[in-house]
Amino acid sequence: MESTIINGRAVADEVLASCATKISQGDVVPGLAVIIVGDNPASQVYVRNKVRACEKAGLHSEKYALSVDVSEVELLGKVAQLNADPAIHGILVQLPLPAHINEDKVLTAIAAHKDVDGFHPENIGRLVAGLPGLRPCTPAGCMVLLERAGVSLSGSRAVVIGRSNIVGKPMALMLINAGATVTVCNSKTPSLAATVQQADIVIAAVGRPRLITAEMIKSGATVIDVGINREDGGLVGDVDFESVRTVAGAITPVPGGVGPMTIAMLVSNTLQAAIA
Amino acid sequence: MESTIINGRAVADEVLASCATKISQGDVVPGLAVIIVGDNPASQVYVRNKVRACEKAGLHSEKYALSVDVSEVELLGKVAQLNADPAIHGILVQLPLPAHINEDKVLTAIAAHKDVDGFHPENIGRLVAGLPGLRPCTPAGCMVLLERAGVSLSGSRAVVIGRSNIVGKPMALMLINAGATVTVCNSKTPSLAATVQQADIVIAAVGRPRLITAEMIKSGATVIDVGINREDGGLVGDVDFESVRTVAGAITPVPGGVGPMTIAMLVSNTLQAAIA
Repeated sequence: MESTIINGRAVADEVLASCATKISQGDVVPGLAVIIVGDNPASQVYVRNKVRACEKAGLHSEKYALSVDVSEVELLGKVAQLNADPAIHGILVQLPLPAHINEDKVLTAIAAHKDVDGFHPENIGRLVAGLPGLRPCTPAGCMVLLERAGVSLSGSRAVVIGRSNIVGKPMALMLINAGATVTVCNSKTPSLAATVQQADIVIAAVGRPRLITAEMIKSGATVIDVGINREDGGLVGDVDFESVRTVAGAITPVPGGVGPMTIAMLVSNTLQAAIA
Repeated sequence: MESTIINGRAVADEVLASCATKISQGDVVPGLAVIIVGDNPASQVYVRNKVRACEKAGLHSEKYALSVDVSEVELLGKVAQLNADPAIHGILVQLPLPAHINEDKVLTAIAAHKDVDGFHPENIGRLVAGLPGLRPCTPAGCMVLLERAGVSLSGSRAVVIGRSNIVGKPMALMLINAGATVTVCNSKTPSLAATVQQADIVIAAVGRPRLITAEMIKSGATVIDVGINREDGGLVGDVDFESVRTVAGAITPVPGGVGPMTIAMLVSNTLQAAIA
C-alpha cells in the first residue's frame, strides 16, 4: 500500500490565502511583533520565514532583534511596550532565549490576548477547558491537517510521542477535546512500539530522527511528523518516512508537512487576535 | 491476593493536621469564602464538609448562601468583593450553578491567586506548563494518595477513565508531568477493558457505578476510584470494589478514599494561597 502524502505546504498556502482575503476585506490591519534575541542561526531562519508569511498575507509585521546580552528587564520592557501598542495585535518571542533570561517570566509577561504563540498559561488553560482562545501554532496546525485529511477523531485512538509544553501536551489536549482516546508517551514508555501499533493517529513530536519505523505503525494509520531534525543530508523527521509510507494510510513529509502549517497558524492567530 | 486498602481518610487527616500546625505557627490566618447558590442537597453537604474541615484546621471561613434566582451580575459582584477582601485568601464557588448563570464566566472572575479550586485558566495553564500554582483539589489529592502508597510514577503506565475539566484532564496532566505514560479514555474508547488492563495505575473518574471490574485490572495495579455515585445502598464508586480488590495491588474505597482528600487539598490550597 502507498500512503497519501499530506501536503502541508499546500494546506498552509490555503490557510494563508484565506487569511489574506479576510485581511483585505477587514477594517483592521493585524500587526505582529517578533522579538528575537541573539544570533542563533535556526532562530534567524524561523523568524525570517514568519515575517515573510506575514507579508504574504498582508499583515503588518515588526521585527526587534535584540543583542544576546540584553537584560531580562530590558526584554520585559520591550514586551510591556508592545502590550500597550494598539497597532500590534500579536507578540512573538522567538525561543530559545539566552540562559540568563527566564523564559517563563517573559512568556507570561505577554498579554494573553496578544499571545499568538498560545504559550501563555491563560490560553493553555482555556485550551484545557475547551474555551475559545489562542492555540499553540504547531498542534493547531496538526489539527487542521487531520481535518483536511478527513480523519475522524471522535472514537479514534491517538498516540502522541513527546510531552513538551509547546507540542506534546497541547496536542494531546486538542485530541482529547475532540473525542479521541489519547496516549502520551515519553522516553521511558514501556514497549513504545506496541503502544504506537494501537494508534489510528500517530503524532511524533520527540526530536529523535526516524524513531518511528514501519513495524510500529498499524496499517492505514494517519502519521503526523512534527520532528524537524537537522542531518547532513538535510532535514529529517521523527518518522522514518520511506518505510512508514508503505504502511500508513496518510503521512506528512518533512520538510513540507507540519512546518509550513506552524507558520500559517501564526498568521491565523494574529488575525484572530486582531478581530477579537 | 488481597489488596492494600488506601485509607484516604487517614491521609486526609494527616494533611489537615499538617496544615493546622503550619497555620498555628504562622502570622496569617488563611481565610476561605465559600459561595453556594440555591439549595441542591448534595452541594449543601459538600459545602458543610468543606467548612467543617476548615474549622478543624484553624482556617477562617465565610459561607455565602445565595438564592437560586440570584442574577449573574450579583454573583459576579460578590466574587469581585471577595477578590478585594484582604482577609480572604481563597474563594470557592460550589458547582453546579443554576442554568441562567454562566459557570465559566464566574470561575474566571475569581482572582487566579485566590482560586483554591484550581479551575481558573491561568492555574490550569500553569499546571500544563509545570509551573507552580493552585492545583485542582481532586486530582491533587489522588497524587498525594499515589505518593503515600509508594507508587512510582516515572516510567509507569497510567490510564485515566474520564476527561472532565475538573478531574480527568488535570489528572492526566499531573501524571504526564510526573513521567507516566498516560492514556485518557472516554465513553467511545475502543476496547476499554484491554486498555485498562495495560495500566499500572488506574484512575476511574467517569461517574458510572462499578464500571471497572476485576477482569479489566492487571494484577498488582494501583486503582484510584474518584467516582461518587449515589445508590439506594449508599455511595458507590466507579470501581467494583469487592471484585477489583482481589486483583489490584492497592485500591481506594468509596467512601473514605478520594473524597476526604479533595477537602484536605482545599484546605492545603487555601493555606498555600495565604502564604504565597
